[in-house]
Amino acid sequence: MSERPKTPLLDQVRRPVDLKPLSDAQLHQLARELRAETISAVSETGGHLGAGLGVVELTVALHAVFDAPRDRIIWDVSHQCYPHKILTGRRDRIRTLRQKDGLSGFTKRSESPFDPFGAAHSSTSISAALGFAVARDLGGAPEHGLGDAVAVIGDGAMSAGMAYEAMNNAGALKKRLIVILNDNEMSIAPPVGAMSSYLSRLYAGAPFQDFKAAAKGAVSLLPQPFQDGARRAKDLLKHMTVGGTLFEELGFSYIGPIDGHDLDQLLPVLRTVHDRATGPVLIHAITKKGKGYAPAETARDKGHGVSKFDVVTGEQRKAPSNAPSYTKVFARALIAQAADDARITAVTAAMPDGTGLDLFAERYPSRCFDVGIAEQHAVTFCAGMAAGGLRPFCALYSTFLQRGYDQVVHDVAIQRLPVRFAIDRAGLVGADGATHAGAFDVAFLANLPGFTVMAAADEAELMHMVATAAAHDEGPIAFRFPRGEGEGVDLPEAGVPLEIGKGRIISDGGRVALLSFGTRLSEVRRAAEALSARGIRPTVADARFAKPLDRELILQLARDHEALITIEEGAIGGFGSHVAQLLAEEGVFDGGLKYRSMVLPDIFIDQASPADMYATARLDAEHIERKVLQVLGVDKLDSKRA
Amino acid sequence: MSERPKTPLLDQVRRPVDLKPLSDAQLHQLARELRAETISAVSETGGHLGAGLGVVELTVALHAVFDAPRDRIIWDVSHQCYPHKILTGRRDRIRTLRQKDGLSGFTKRSESPFDPFGAAHSSTSISAALGFAVARDLGGAPEHGLGDAVAVIGDGAMSAGMAYEAMNNAGALKKRLIVILNDNEMSIAPPVGAMSSYLSRLYAGAPFQDFKAAAKGAVSLLPQPFQDGARRAKDLLKHMTVGGTLFEELGFSYIGPIDGHDLDQLLPVLRTVHDRATGPVLIHAITKKGKGYAPAETARDKGHGVSKFDVVTGEQRKAPSNAPSYTKVFARALIAQAADDARITAVTAAMPDGTGLDLFAERYPSRCFDVGIAEQHAVTFCAGMAAGGLRPFCALYSTFLQRGYDQVVHDVAIQRLPVRFAIDRAGLVGADGATHAGAFDVAFLANLPGFTVMAAADEAELMHMVATAAAHDEGPIAFRFPRGEGEGVDLPEAGVPLEIGKGRIISDGGRVALLSFGTRLSEVRRAAEALSARGIRPTVADARFAKPLDRELILQLARDHEALITIEEGAIGGFGSHVAQLLAEEGVFDGGLKYRSMVLPDIFIDQASPADMYATARLDAEHIERKVLQVLGVDKLDSKRA
Repeated sequence: MSERPKTPLLDQVRRPVDLKPLSDAQLHQLARELRAETISAVSETGGHLGAGLGVVELTVALHAVFDAPRDRIIWDVSHQCYPHKILTGRRDRIRTLRQKDGLSGFTKRSESPFDPFGAAHSSTSISAALGFAVARDLGGAPEHGLGDAVAVIGDGAMSAGMAYEAMNNAGALKKRLIVILNDNEMSIAPPVGAMSSYLSRLYAGAPFQDFKAAAKGAVSLLPQPFQDGARRAKDLLKHMTVGGTLFEELGFSYIGPIDGHDLDQLLPVLRTVHDRATGPVLIHAITKKGKGYAPAETARDKGHGVSKFDVVTGEQRKAPSNAPSYTKVFARALIAQAADDARITAVTAAMPDGTGLDLFAERYPSRCFDVGIAEQHAVTFCAGMAAGGLRPFCALYSTFLQRGYDQVVHDVAIQRLPVRFAIDRAGLVGADGATHAGAFDVAFLANLPGFTVMAAADEAELMHMVATAAAHDEGPIAFRFPRGEGEGVDLPEAGVPLEIGKGRIISDGGRVALLSFGTRLSEVRRAAEALSARGIRPTVADARFAKPLDRELILQLARDHEALITIEEGAIGGFGSHVAQLLAEEGVFDGGLKYRSMVLPDIFIDQASPADMYATARLDAEHIERKVLQVLGVDKLDSKRA
Repeated sequence: MSERPKTPLLDQVRRPVDLKPLSDAQLHQLARELRAETISAVSETGGHLGAGLGVVELTVALHAVFDAPRDRIIWDVSHQCYPHKILTGRRDRIRTLRQKDGLSGFTKRSESPFDPFGAAHSSTSISAALGFAVARDLGGAPEHGLGDAVAVIGDGAMSAGMAYEAMNNAGALKKRLIVILNDNEMSIAPPVGAMSSYLSRLYAGAPFQDFKAAAKGAVSLLPQPFQDGARRAKDLLKHMTVGGTLFEELGFSYIGPIDGHDLDQLLPVLRTVHDRATGPVLIHAITKKGKGYAPAETARDKGHGVSKFDVVTGEQRKAPSNAPSYTKVFARALIAQAADDARITAVTAAMPDGTGLDLFAERYPSRCFDVGIAEQHAVTFCAGMAAGGLRPFCALYSTFLQRGYDQVVHDVAIQRLPVRFAIDRAGLVGADGATHAGAFDVAFLANLPGFTVMAAADEAELMHMVATAAAHDEGPIAFRFPRGEGEGVDLPEAGVPLEIGKGRIISDGGRVALLSFGTRLSEVRRAAEALSARGIRPTVADARFAKPLDRELILQLARDHEALITIEEGAIGGFGSHVAQLLAEEGVFDGGLKYRSMVLPDIFIDQASPADMYATARLDAEHIERKVLQVLGVDKLDSKRA
C-alpha cells in the first residue's frame, strides 16, 4: 500500500452541499485532492481508473453548480463515477469498490440517492435524462424532488444508435435538459466511425485559448438561449468553435468545445447553463482519459481497467495466470481458421481488446471491423456479409448481444444466414456484477428456429467450436464461453469441427446422470468425485449443444438413470428448458423421472468473485453434490438444505 | 373487381434486364403502367399501397440503371416493394400478395434472387448494404456475383439508431455504397423528432425547379466525387440545396434533394452515381406516399395499409367486425386509468395508430410520446420517467420490443423500475408473416428477475390487466395481447387489478388439466367441449401470469390430474418452461405426470390467416384435442397422429 494522500479540503466534504460555500480557488484545490484520492483508492481495489481521472474537474464543477440528489446527474456507462462516489457520501467505502459486499463499480440506484439512474452498458443516459425531464414537467414527485436532468456521456457512447435516438427525441421535445459530451477521443478502445472524425474536426479548428478567453471573461458571448437576442454573438461563437452543427441540427443548443480540465471554463459555462437554459443544451468538453496520472495517461488504454497498482510506479499487480484466457484461445483459434479461409471476417463493437479481436486485427486488418458501440448494426452488418458470401464472426459479450437481439431474430435467424456468434463473458463475470452477467443468451437464442447453440466446456472445446462455427454454412451458429482463464487442459494443434447436435459422455456411472452445458463441467466433475466418495458414482456428460439437442444421448441418460440433472450457466428458458420439453414430449415424465434443471437463480447477483457468485447461484460443486443427494433422497442426515 | 389496366409496355418486362433497351420516354410510360398495375393488384389483395406508389419512378430508375440481382437493391422495411416485385419476375403472382402460399408482403431472400436481403422491421438496409459492399471488396462470391449495394430507406426509418450506427460505420469505412433517402415526410405515422424537422428544413430552402434545371441540363454540377476537381461546383450545389450537412458530416457525399417522382432527375443522378461513385453516397429524393392515386394521397395515412378496395372509388371493403379489437380495448382502458391518475404516461415508437395510442394522445396530448422508430430509447425513456415518479406505459408490438431488449434488462429489470409494457401483436399475426410474429417475448421477459408477465385471455381480462399494471409500482410488469378482434365477451365497467400471481379455474373436470396462458383459451375451451363429447371432461384453467406463477394452482392441477398440458402463443422457453421448472423442482415428475407443453413450433411460419397459422402451429382446438387423446392413450383409433 502506498501512503494515503493528504486531502484536508476533501476531508471536509461529506455531501455535495458541502461544496456550496467553497470559492472557485478552493474548488481547484478540491479537484486536486479528489484526483489523488481516486488514484489512491483504485490502487488498492483495481477498477476503472482512466475514466474517473478524466472527469475529476467535471465532477467537482457539476456538484458545485447543481443540487444533487434533487438534480439528477446521470453518468453514462458510469466507469467514470468513482470521483462522484467520493463526493457523494461514499468515500468511507471507496476502498471496497467492485468487491463482494462493497461499492459497485458503477452507479446504482439501490446504493445511493445520488445515483439516480444506474448504468454499465453505454449510451442510456440521454434517454433516462429525458425521462426525468418529462417527469419533472408533468409533476412527477419522486423522493428528493426533481430538478434538472444532466447526462454526462462520452464520445464513444455517442456512436451508439440509442444516443442518437434520444437526442433526436430530446431535440424535438425541446424540454430543458443538459447533456455534457465528455469527449476524450477514447471510450474503451480508440473510438471509430465517422462521428469520431466529426468530433475531431470540430475541435481541430478551435484553439482552446480563444474560447477560454471568451468563456472566462464574457459569459455574454454564450449562445442563445443564454444571451437574449444575441444572435450575432451566437454566430460569432459558432464560427469560433467550428460549429457543432450536427448537434444543433438535432435540436440542441451547442456550447463548446471547452477544456474539461479547466474549472475556469467549466464553472462559468455550467453556471450560465444552469441559470438560463430553456431547452436541450449540449456542452462539449474535451478531456483526457487518465488525466493527471502519468502511468494512466501514457498507457495505451489510458488506464481503462487496472488491477491493484503501486501509486508511485504505476506498476500493476496481476495474479500470475496458469492457463490462457478463453478470450485469447478464441482469438488464436479464429486466426488459425482465417489463415486457411479468406472468407472469414470478424466484427467487434468497440471491444477489440475484450474480445481478443485486437490480435485478429493485427494479422488480418482488412478483415476485422470495429463498428463502434453499435451492436444492432454489428449483427446486421454481419448478416449482410454472410449474404455476400463471407463467413463473419460477430464477437460480442453475452450481455451486449442483448442490444442486437432483434437483428439476430429478424436479419439472421429468419433468413438463416450463417453468421457466427462468438459470445464471450457468458455466465457470471465477477467484479462487473449483475449488469454484465451473461445470463440470458441461451434462452433467447435457442428458441430461434434454425439456430445452432453451443457452449464450450473448456478451452480445447472452444477451439473445436470455433472450427465448427467456421465450417457451418447452413444457418446461424453461436458458441458461448466465460470470462477468465481456461481450465488448463491441453490444447489440440488445431480445432476440429464437431458433429452438430452431438454431446459426449465424460464418465459412465449409475443412478444419477449429470448433464452439463458449458464450463460448469469442472464443478460437475468435482461434485461427481465427492459423490463417488460417498458411494454414488454419477454419469457425467457434456451436452455441447443446447440446439439441436442430442436427443439420443438425453433419452438414453433418462432411460438408464433414476435421476437426470442438467447444469448450465444461464437463466431459466435455456438448455434445461429444452431438455425438459424433449423429455415431456417423449413421455419420459409419464412414468416418472427425477429430473432437475440447475440454472441461475431468479435474482440479479451483485459483484463478487465469480466463484462467490456461483456459490450464491448454487451452481458450484458443493451445491451440485447437495442437489444430487437431495434428489436421491440420501440427504436425510445432511439436513441443512441450501 | 375493377377491370385490369392496359399495360402494353409492362407486359414486355419479365425481368429488370428488359428495361435496358428502353428509352427514357419509354421508362416514363413504364412507370405509369407500373403504378396502374400496383393499384390494381393491391385493390384485389389489400396490403401496403401508399409506400409502393411513392417509389414507382424510383423502382423503374433503379432497375434501369443498376443490374439486379448482381447489384443488390435493398428496400428498407420493404412495405414499398410491390412495384419491385412486379418488375422482377413476380408479376404473375402479384395478386397473391400476403396470402397463404402467396407472395410475401415484404422482400424475402427465399422468394427471389432479386430480394437480396429481406426486411419488415425498419432501418436495417444500410447495415446490410455495407455488409454486401465489404463482401464485394473482400472477394465474397455469392450466387449471382456481387456488384453495387443500394439501400433505399425512408425518412422515418432514419430516426432509428441502427440507421445512424450504420451511416457512422459506412462513413468511416469509405467503401462505395449508395443510400437513397426516400423522404416522403411520412413513415407509417407522420414522422416525429428532430431529424424530421431537419429534413424538412433541408428542402424547404431548395425549390425543386432550381435543382431540376441543374440536374437535367448539367450533370457536371453534381458534387465530388462525381466531378473531378469541382470543389466550386460542389459548394455551389450545396448552397443551392441547403446542404445535407448532417450526412456529409457522417462521411457521405450528399446529393439532393431531388424530385423522386421525376425520372428526368432520377435517371441522370443515378447514372452519374453509378458511373463515378467511389465512396458512400446519399441521394435525397423527395416523394409522396400514395403518389398518383387520389384516394391514397388524400388519406390521413396515405394508404399505408389498405384492405381490398374499389379502384375507381377507393372505397375499402372491410369485413364487418363484431368485437372491438384488443388494441382499442387496451387504448380505452388506458385512457380510463389515466383519467384517475395523472402519473400515467404512454410511449409509442412510431405506431400511434397500431398501438391505439392515437386515441390516448387525443385525450392526453402532453402525456403521450411518439419517439419515432426508436425502441431502445423508448424503453429507457420510460425507465427514466418511472424513476421520476410517473407510471409510464411502453406500448410496443411484441416483435419490436426485441429492439429494446437490452434496455428492458439493463435499465428496467435490474433497477426494478415500474415500467408497464403493453405488448400488442403477441403470437401469430397473419398477413405480416414470420417477421412480425410475437413469439419470443414471454421467454425473454419471464426469465428476468423481478418481472411480472401476464397474458390476457380475452378483452375483459385485458382491461383488468391494464388496471393491474397501472397499480403495480413494485417493479416492471408486462401484459401481452394479440392482433385482431377480441372474443366478443362482455366488458366490465372498469378494469379491476388482479391479484399478482394468481390464475383462475375456468371449468372443473378430471383426468386432464388444460392450463392456458393467453388467448388460446377460446381454442382450449373448444377442445374441452369436443373432449367432453367423447366422455373426457378436462379441467380448464387460465394462468393469467407466466411470472410469478400460481404455484398453488399448478401443483394442485398436477396433483388432481393424470395429465397436465400447458398451451401458449409463444416459443419454447416461456410459460410452459417455467411450469416445467416448477414441477421438476417440486419433485412432481419423480412419481410421474403426463406433462406436455404446447408452444409454437420450431419453424418460422409464413403468412396466412391467423387461424391457418395456428393450425400450422398445431395450437388450435383440433390439435389440442388430439394432444389430449394422445397423452391419455385414447387415440388408438384416431391413429393419424398430427
